[in-house]
Amino acid sequence: MNNIEVCFTPNNYSLFHNNDSIVVVIDILRATSAICTALHHGVKEIIPVATVEEARIYQSKGFLAAAERNGEVIEGFAFGNSPFSYMGDEVKDKSIVLTTTNGTQAVEVARKAHQVVIGSFLNLDVLCEWLSKQQRDIILLCAGWKNKFNIEDTIFAGAVAQKLQNSGKFSSTCDSAIASMYLYERAASNLFDFLQSSSHRRRLEKLHLEKDIRYCLTLNTAPVIPVLSGNSLIRL
Amino acid sequence: MNNIEVCFTPNNYSLFHNNDSIVVVIDILRATSAICTALHHGVKEIIPVATVEEARIYQSKGFLAAAERNGEVIEGFAFGNSPFSYMGDEVKDKSIVLTTTNGTQAVEVARKAHQVVIGSFLNLDVLCEWLSKQQRDIILLCAGWKNKFNIEDTIFAGAVAQKLQNSGKFSSTCDSAIASMYLYERAASNLFDFLQSSSHRRRLEKLHLEKDIRYCLTLNTAPVIPVLSGNSLIRL
Repeated sequence: MNNIEVCFTPNNYSLFHNNDSIVVVIDILRATSAICTALHHGVKEIIPVATVEEARIYQSKGFLAAAERNGEVIEGFAFGNSPFSYMGDEVKDKSIVLTTTNGTQAVEVARKAHQVVIGSFLNLDVLCEWLSKQQRDIILLCAGWKNKFNIEDTIFAGAVAQKLQNSGKFSSTCDSAIASMYLYERAASNLFDFLQSSSHRRRLEKLHLEKDIRYCLTLNTAPVIPVLSGNSLIRL
Repeated sequence: MNNIEVCFTPNNYSLFHNNDSIVVVIDILRATSAICTALHHGVKEIIPVATVEEARIYQSKGFLAAAERNGEVIEGFAFGNSPFSYMGDEVKDKSIVLTTTNGTQAVEVARKAHQVVIGSFLNLDVLCEWLSKQQRDIILLCAGWKNKFNIEDTIFAGAVAQKLQNSGKFSSTCDSAIASMYLYERAASNLFDFLQSSSHRRRLEKLHLEKDIRYCLTLNTAPVIPVLSGNSLIRL
């Protein structure tokens, strides 16, 4: 029986780290939703970097680069983390460097895990099916919001924890996994309405991102598993 | 309108700290339940210290000292953090030095707040009534378990957040407060049964502490407000 744990914020990851575990990085609004979308729509690879400076260095070398902070595209970059920026012919087969407020930081802290994969509602089922076959402990790492707990990432963690527990191959004794499953149960019938109460969602609403949010909460529309390979996220 | 935030673990407190806020320290199983019990039963003051070494130094100076780690009394100390140790004549009017796995660490990190008070189900109503009159932002600081999220502290935070929000004088836009309120709603009808699923509670069960746990989940049986004054927790 393998174990599932949920880590709510990247700054607490060291309390959970284990060289043998698989880490699922979760940043529902919007980095990990964008990454799944990109790889599903034929982007060759996403190179996640922690800082805007690193993204600029890649850019100066000719890479296509995307940068978001506080929900907005940073000046001088082609786009940010809206999933709709990752669907067109102009990104197909491209390498894209990406830095975001929370999501790419979470990838960074988990680098030394056995394997790092990307989770979002857009790849929920295919991800859970794959995880259930790996016979490894799993850490669900929420990107949160500037190292504070965030409700949409937690609900997704709860969805994964519940599915894996139902597979009969995993148990979850950690309180954060248990809480995540309760919150997912509460939210599952209408994710969008439930997230009305989330501060981050409200923050994004101010930026007129309702279309993005609705898309990020749809299930299984980008059924790929992005996996960290060297410095790149590629399709498994 | 004042704000309520919930900080799930002491190591994240710096993200929430504000010189003008009141911090409620929460360690339901069992430090803050024991502290409320002690002051309700006539203990003069509790001196919380972070380390066992500090407790021993006080002890060598003739203080009554209590020390708990991982749910058990540390050798050489009269008692640990069982609330039942704080009810008798032998502790009445005494100063007691106390160090515990989580709770006293949480008091330590919050020292610089405007005011630090102690919360538990045993003083829920009197605490909320007092908080609702203070016209200050409130940080509900869960002691957690070794800096990991813990479900019983969170449920209590949810109970306080909900009561304060219902008073109409507070709002809560932080996701952790919102999640805490959902979890409290889920748990409220039978706290003991709900906590069957909590790892820490199961850990305590192994130590045969069911009587302690049932007591710590009773409402308003120690209606005092312990407040940090200098190095001591005393009755407000």
